Amino acid sequence: MSRPGPLRCFLGAALILLAWAASAPAAQQADCLSCHEKDTPGAVAQWRQSVHEDAGVGCADCHGGDHDRIEAGEAYVSVEVCGRCHQEALATHKESRHGMGLHSGWGCTRNLTGRDARECSFCHDKSSTIPLSTVQCGRFLKQTSEMGAAGCNRCHQVERSCAACHSNHDTDLAIVRSPAVCATCHMGPDHPQWEVWKTSKHGTLYDSKGLGPSCQDCHFEGSGHNVSAGIAYPSSGFRYDEAQTQKKRDFMLDLCVKCHGRNFSRRELDNTDAIREQSTAMVEQAAEIIRELHDEGLLDPMPDERPPHPLRGNELVLDQQILFEDVSHIERLYFKMKKFDLAKTLVGGYHQNPDYTHWYGNAELKMDLVDIRAEASRLRRLAALEKGRGTARTPDKAAVLEEELRRLKSRFQRGAMSEQEYGQRKKELLDASGASPD
Amino acid sequence: MSRPGPLRCFLGAALILLAWAASAPAAQQADCLSCHEKDTPGAVAQWRQSVHEDAGVGCADCHGGDHDRIEAGEAYVSVEVCGRCHQEALATHKESRHGMGLHSGWGCTRNLTGRDARECSFCHDKSSTIPLSTVQCGRFLKQTSEMGAAGCNRCHQVERSCAACHSNHDTDLAIVRSPAVCATCHMGPDHPQWEVWKTSKHGTLYDSKGLGPSCQDCHFEGSGHNVSAGIAYPSSGFRYDEAQTQKKRDFMLDLCVKCHGRNFSRRELDNTDAIREQSTAMVEQAAEIIRELHDEGLLDPMPDERPPHPLRGNELVLDQQILFEDVSHIERLYFKMKKFDLAKTLVGGYHQNPDYTHWYGNAELKMDLVDIRAEASRLRRLAALEKGRGTARTPDKAAVLEEELRRLKSRFQRGAMSEQEYGQRKKELLDASGASPD
Amino acid sequence: MSRPGPLRCFLGAALILLAWAASAPAAQQADCLSCHEKDTPGAVAQWRQSVHEDAGVGCADCHGGDHDRIEAGEAYVSVEVCGRCHQEALATHKESRHGMGLHSGWGCTRNLTGRDARECSFCHDKSSTIPLSTVQCGRFLKQTSEMGAAGCNRCHQVERSCAACHSNHDTDLAIVRSPAVCATCHMGPDHPQWEVWKTSKHGTLYDSKGLGPSCQDCHFEGSGHNVSAGIAYPSSGFRYDEAQTQKKRDFMLDLCVKCHGRNFSRRELDNTDAIREQSTAMVEQAAEIIRELHDEGLLDPMPDERPPHPLRGNELVLDQQILFEDVSHIERLYFKMKKFDLAKTLVGGYHQNPDYTHWYGNAELKMDLVDIRAEASRLRRLAALEKGRGTARTPDKAAVLEEELRRLKSRFQRGAMSEQEYGQRKKELLDASGASPD
Repeated sequence: MSRPGPLRCFLGAALILLAWAASAPAAQQADCLSCHEKDTPGAVAQWRQSVHEDAGVGCADCHGGDHDRIEAGEAYVSVEVCGRCHQEALATHKESRHGMGLHSGWGCTRNLTGRDARECSFCHDKSSTIPLSTVQCGRFLKQTSEMGAAGCNRCHQVERSCAACHSNHDTDLAIVRSPAVCATCHMGPDHPQWEVWKTSKHGTLYDSKGLGPSCQDCHFEGSGHNVSAGIAYPSSGFRYDEAQTQKKRDFMLDLCVKCHGRNFSRRELDNTDAIREQSTAMVEQAAEIIRELHDEGLLDPMPDERPPHPLRGNELVLDQQILFEDVSHIERLYFKMKKFDLAKTLVGGYHQNPDYTHWYGNAELKMDLVDIRAEASRLRRLAALEKGRGTARTPDKAAVLEEELRRLKSRFQRGAMSEQEYGQRKKELLDASGASPD
Repeated sequence: MSRPGPLRCFLGAALILLAWAASAPAAQQADCLSCHEKDTPGAVAQWRQSVHEDAGVGCADCHGGDHDRIEAGEAYVSVEVCGRCHQEALATHKESRHGMGLHSGWGCTRNLTGRDARECSFCHDKSSTIPLSTVQCGRFLKQTSEMGAAGCNRCHQVERSCAACHSNHDTDLAIVRSPAVCATCHMGPDHPQWEVWKTSKHGTLYDSKGLGPSCQDCHFEGSGHNVSAGIAYPSSGFRYDEAQTQKKRDFMLDLCVKCHGRNFSRRELDNTDAIREQSTAMVEQAAEIIRELHDEGLLDPMPDERPPHPLRGNELVLDQQILFEDVSHIERLYFKMKKFDLAKTLVGGYHQNPDYTHWYGNAELKMDLVDIRAEASRLRRLAALEKGRGTARTPDKAAVLEEELRRLKSRFQRGAMSEQEYGQRKKELLDASGASPD
Repeated sequence: MSRPGPLRCFLGAALILLAWAASAPAAQQADCLSCHEKDTPGAVAQWRQSVHEDAGVGCADCHGGDHDRIEAGEAYVSVEVCGRCHQEALATHKESRHGMGLHSGWGCTRNLTGRDARECSFCHDKSSTIPLSTVQCGRFLKQTSEMGAAGCNRCHQVERSCAACHSNHDTDLAIVRSPAVCATCHMGPDHPQWEVWKTSKHGTLYDSKGLGPSCQDCHFEGSGHNVSAGIAYPSSGFRYDEAQTQKKRDFMLDLCVKCHGRNFSRRELDNTDAIREQSTAMVEQAAEIIRELHDEGLLDPMPDERPPHPLRGNELVLDQQILFEDVSHIERLYFKMKKFDLAKTLVGGYHQNPDYTHWYGNAELKMDLVDIRAEASRLRRLAALEKGRGTARTPDKAAVLEEELRRLKSRFQRGAMSEQEYGQRKKELLDASGASPD
């Protein structure tokens, strides 16, 4: 498949660099190397073999010339530094999910060193310290700063660092054209793209004879650094409008038909669209079970009996801001279902990996539902026993009414019905029972 | 290791093809290409580099000349189409588990396009719509058609499509001689042969210097396409008779001794045979716990409180037709134990992978048993409390008798004892208690 | 990176071998080959291509000349046999964790054939058949001998067999310089070093262009066969003294700075040190929950209601000797937390793999804590109901006192307080309640 070769990339960048490089005094570069050849010999050796050395782009051109600022971690080589020369790459990077973290609130910036105060507005309303509701960082706010660095930011640095993929000083395009470069971040239970591709037909054909398309062949081809160009349904739950969705689907189909028929390719993608709806419905079934338990006051512990959610307080949170700590067992089962098993099903489906779609995905979703229903039954049986009803299956009438009224109130309080509907439904219950309001 | 080289394969097939190919008018082939060079350029390019192009085997030779049928998905290139030329490959394929799906009921054919009504008899008695008891497709019958396509059939197509492994148009034998080709299907929790081999001594020696045997070296060598020739104990639970088992074991040993001593090799395989018996006994222990809970009416939910099994109705199903959805929590734990962890133990053992045999297999089986016993205790304690006995550990005498009678009846109803035995045992219980029959 | 090349290794060994090899009569070697060329052709072919054949080291030089002893498995080619020539390799191997099993009790020797009775003292006090408390083999003592062979010893043979890594007859250093050689043992839930490295930045750079450091680059470089030279905090929980810890940390840092700055490298390792402390604290929180349940008599089953621990009897065991079978559900959850998820967090952190550190590690630890708290709550609610208190949340005063006294006694019995403290605390409880001692 056609892509700008290393030579063309180099030439494009080199032209831009000529004027720039001229302003970096050779004497300064020699100063850096006199120490760093001893202190960080690997870094210097990689730079020496890079196109940057050939083009006269030295240490200070990227790191700046103020050694104190560098030492203090204030001279970060951000995407904007690289973008001074690599303008098209920066522009397409910023159009992609890779580059949108600081702009849309899809990432979490709190641990990034040297962040700009104006960035706050990417996630917060001006009048509020609470992030916007589309921000997913609730669970990251519970992390220690060390976990933030070793966990979150080692991947989310892609938002602001080209080196996240290209490595720091080695500019060899072999690095970023290997599917391996994607593995470190696009693996694991919540976004297993790498494992899924690796063992799909595409990945195994790539492995056996270099025939199958790589990550880059489908996600960089024709879109520069906009890796999201062909992804019609982002995993975040965010949905594009119909026209955008169609445009992205067509972008991908135009790649599929290089090898496959268009009808076949569309059917494959449509298939996973259907699986997405079926799977999402299963997840919603589970969410409804948990909401009902919450309405009945049966979660153990209930939100007000545990440390508050950092963004939502004592609310039950089952959306993208769901936590995996300081929750009840049934919510943690739901976290696995929603964040891990749904992702495996869909990433498996869109990459044509049957074992991920079926065993790691769909089968786990179904077993999650078994587990969640079992826990719901357990909680109800314990509660019924504790209320002294004798048995969970034949509660007395007064207890049933009391329960239904409490549940109705909870639904009203969490915004599932208007005040009018609440009043109306309450009246109906009381009328039907012949009892007076409490 | 010796195998027919690509050249020999090619020549063998080419001779047969000459007469055949002569009947395909060159004009027709040109017709196909005039569109498909634009519509599916990858497919055409692969064909152009294939031995099929060299041998004059064109599009219509495999796909037929009726474009409407092709478009309608009615011109499937089945193993029989390929077998017109590749006769020995077809014959040995059909002897293997890979080729037996449509014949023995080991696969599930309901979602295959263009299936022949006569195939019904492979799975059904003539007078019945219920599949034969050896058919495992219960859980697949619960799938949506989209999951059937993206999950089940992407692997089970091997039963009727050579392209499942060989790919559609590229005939390069490098594809099918790489262990990678096996990965897409032989991976995952229920049949992790690929991961197991990859990280076994054999797989790592293959990785470091091409020394260790590949999947193909042990499972194709000397048996053509009969991949099952050396597998003495199929994972399905099906057992060959003693003579067949010995023949298959000897077939494998003859491969082992190319590198290892015969005694050592036999001891290795015998070792896993013993682990198979130990592991199966653990799984049976778990099954017995669940059967007892069923007899006591304590599964939550019981079979008659949930959607019926598609083949067996409201029966408790713990054999090969076990489901992973619409079951109780303890049955789902048992599903993991039987289908995932037992498989990992045995596939790990027969491929000499200590981490799979021990940690992913045996250790999980033991933890499964802990979990299953814990759930059994929980269900019993809840039930005892609901029956108002006060405590689970000191039930009163009448309740014990009532329970034992109910359990006896359940055992009789599920066929675990004859009517005579049931009457006899019931009488004994009543006599011992001094009570009259209910 | 500099390492002795194959040639230098060969020459060093060859000099030592000359005198030795001269004593092995060529006639004897011919005897071996006359049968083994037919019986084990692969082994002979590997030997023929090895430096051993070049150096005149024949079968009997390693296996001895007594065929009966070989057949009986009494002529094991131990590390000492290899060490007769490869002295430095043996010496550094014995300094490492790889070679310490038989000396420190870190391994389990009971299944090793031909073991020396004097080895007993490595694990046992002279006067006792109970292994020392630092021995971890409790769970292995529960294994069948077949699982011991196929599970434990296939990896733990590294303690006494060079062939564990080098393979039996092929001396090609390509085998042991490939990271693949480490995979078979350093994978899986309890020590996933291989998977973690493979998908870390280091592993993916190695994959894409051979740039990233391999296992060998960091764990063999400069220390011969002492793979533990740079590991400051062993996963066993054993801690070096401060000077040794610092020495090992400095050893590793000297390797990091070949590519990275020293400050950056130190910060990376310090970061995971902090994560280690945070994670260990979470595991300790879980242990405390289980100890309290034990004090309250609420584990299901309690230690005295189940098969005894092979080393500790009916004691609650949560340290390195913890079992994964014949325990209560909550202890098995704790086993996963302590042995699997803590390991993934730390191995992930020290190898800079964000997905292992975060998702497979830290996130699972937090979910484990949710599960363990949920099970504790379930056990307490069931027990409260069984005691007839009506509800778990409002126990009566007498029951509370009785419970606290029982718990105090259990704490005293497990050595958590002195007799004096116990008496004092008991008195306080009784005084506060106005009740007389029981």
